[in-house]
Amino acid sequence: MATHETELKWIDDMKFDVYQNSKTIRIDANPDEATSTGVRPKALILSSLAGCTAIDVVELLNKMRVQFSDFSIKVTGELTEEHPRTYKTVTATYALKLQDPAEKDKVEKAVKLSQEKYCGVSAMVRQFADLKYEIVYLQ
Amino acid sequence: MATHETELKWIDDMKFDVYQNSKTIRIDANPDEATSTGVRPKALILSSLAGCTAIDVVELLNKMRVQFSDFSIKVTGELTEEHPRTYKTVTATYALKLQDPAEKDKVEKAVKLSQEKYCGVSAMVRQFADLKYEIVYLQ
Repeated sequence: MATHETELKWIDDMKFDVYQNSKTIRIDANPDEATSTGVRPKALILSSLAGCTAIDVVELLNKMRVQFSDFSIKVTGELTEEHPRTYKTVTATYALKLQDPAEKDKVEKAVKLSQEKYCGVSAMVRQFADLKYEIVYLQ
Repeated sequence: MATHETELKWIDDMKFDVYQNSKTIRIDANPDEATSTGVRPKALILSSLAGCTAIDVVELLNKMRVQFSDFSIKVTGELTEEHPRTYKTVTATYALKLQDPAEKDKVEKAVKLSQEKYCGVSAMVRQFADLKYEIVYLQ
């Protein structure tokens, strides 16, 4: 049976290191970005979604031989008012520059396949949030 | 309305940087840990859970004036066979060394409060997986 594992270790105060795939991610509960030494944990779910669908879309565009550059994904999560605060709406905004603007339909197909079929993180997020996505074409 | 945001940028090949709270997390689809330059995205959900509940538990133990050391949390996610692969069972194993072993009930209370009341990530994970937890006391 396939399993994934991560391990967190307490450093001091409200700082923690999480070991994942032999790499370390520093987590720090300090909400002040200027002095915080790490990321806040909840938004790692948004980063997880961005990474999962990015891999799918880049792979699919390569297979379709679509030439592109400046590929990015912004993921926004809107929190519930009530506690515990969870993401009630999650929006993924894909942006990229196409060499051939006539290939927009291929991009739309790749994003749709990832969001609705391939990306396991999207499937999980959809169990607790309203998941939306949009595509922006850069000039 | 409170929102969280992360932004991913494609670097090259199957490598991406995600910007979160002014920090960068490298994502790399390469499954070979020896040559991969980053983490795989799906397990960031497990790291998110570890960080969220760790902050709660350390904060609660501090409030209860419980003296502890060697605090860690291992999170394991068991994947579904069918695609898209999601986590069907998630297990968080808390480990710590107590100065006074008579305070185990306080640790159990703190973990239970985090898992069932405070931790938003636990609440989200519970929407798609069977979420279990256990506590190991180190000597």
